[in-house]
Amino acid sequence: MKISRPKAVILLSGGLDSAVALYLAKQRGFDCRSLVFNYGQRHSKEIECAKKISLKAGCDYKLLNISLPWKGSLLLEGSKKLPAVSNRFAKNIPSTYVPGRNIIFLSFALSYAEAIGAQSIFIGAHNQDYSGYPDCRPEFFKAFSAMALKGTKAGTENKRIIIEAPLLNKGKAEIIKIGAKLKVPFNLTWSCYKGGKKPCGKCDSCYFRIKGFKEAGIKEL
Amino acid sequence: MKISRPKAVILLSGGLDSAVALYLAKQRGFDCRSLVFNYGQRHSKEIECAKKISLKAGCDYKLLNISLPWKGSLLLEGSKKLPAVSNRFAKNIPSTYVPGRNIIFLSFALSYAEAIGAQSIFIGAHNQDYSGYPDCRPEFFKAFSAMALKGTKAGTENKRIIIEAPLLNKGKAEIIKIGAKLKVPFNLTWSCYKGGKKPCGKCDSCYFRIKGFKEAGIKEL
Repeated sequence: MKISRPKAVILLSGGLDSAVALYLAKQRGFDCRSLVFNYGQRHSKEIECAKKISLKAGCDYKLLNISLPWKGSLLLEGSKKLPAVSNRFAKNIPSTYVPGRNIIFLSFALSYAEAIGAQSIFIGAHNQDYSGYPDCRPEFFKAFSAMALKGTKAGTENKRIIIEAPLLNKGKAEIIKIGAKLKVPFNLTWSCYKGGKKPCGKCDSCYFRIKGFKEAGIKEL
Repeated sequence: MKISRPKAVILLSGGLDSAVALYLAKQRGFDCRSLVFNYGQRHSKEIECAKKISLKAGCDYKLLNISLPWKGSLLLEGSKKLPAVSNRFAKNIPSTYVPGRNIIFLSFALSYAEAIGAQSIFIGAHNQDYSGYPDCRPEFFKAFSAMALKGTKAGTENKRIIIEAPLLNKGKAEIIKIGAKLKVPFNLTWSCYKGGKKPCGKCDSCYFRIKGFKEAGIKEL
């Protein structure tokens, strides 16, 4: 008799962090299903990368197209210039914040998890480099789990769907070290906020990636 | 000097309840923006109705297309037969439950509210006739508000976005009486779960509508 493995839904962005989160879930024995969003972001290249990572990991994926017909974030407004390094270490919420983004992503993941009977949702969020995002904080994930328990059929049956953010307190270098051990295909991941053929090497996201590999002592292929 | 009115986002389904919620928000002086979802429901006729109601109320509306590429509810599975009256008063969660539906809707409404600086989100949910839906319960709305406070920029600035469910403890007849006083265009609302030219008169939704008008002593035109 084949015993079915517990299922997990993975929010996969195409970036480095969520790829590591996927491989951590795989290592823990989950039957992983990745969920990829096309939400009109500048860097739609991420979507191709997310698909390739899913295939490489042997994991089923679903792509959801959602467009937000309101503004409120530089990532969705193609014509504005992205901030380079200037306000990188500011204490304020970065201008790349998209209102409710992780809340929307997690809501879809929750619906999917409930529909397939998954017990966990993995998200690659971390609060080291991007401490400014309110929807990347442990207290937010805790509040989301509490809300999920009240608002789902699974919750009324006392089946708790857990939001797992295994990288939450880790820095980029540490995440890269974990990923290297798990043989995460870093070459398939995309970090740059711009959608060019090659990473720009200048935006916040590129800056932290380059710095992370350097600090981890790992050479990016 | 023109003083701008406070804004509210209204989740409008095209049904009777959310139309009454919209008119209640208008009465309270809100600058209303309605949000309408096309989520592959059987009764897409609702969408046309929601647009007409918005126009009638002089309220801006946005339509969001979201498709859930997983199953889990009869409302999304076109070929299956809908339950008629048989399990109407069952204590269990109805088979028309869509995993995470209100959570997804409210997440988009929250994003919209934050992007335009709205302070309230109105939802026409009520727990009288459909007490089985977990995402129509007061404890769920409370948990959602708490989560919103933790997961948004507005929340970190102590701007609470309130989920208002003014019909929560009201029965259908009472909702119809309120709507009649506010001159809600009932003729533009659609309740039937089926997508025919005329309401079927047999499904749960038709049943409660007909019963509600009868009990309210109001003749539907």
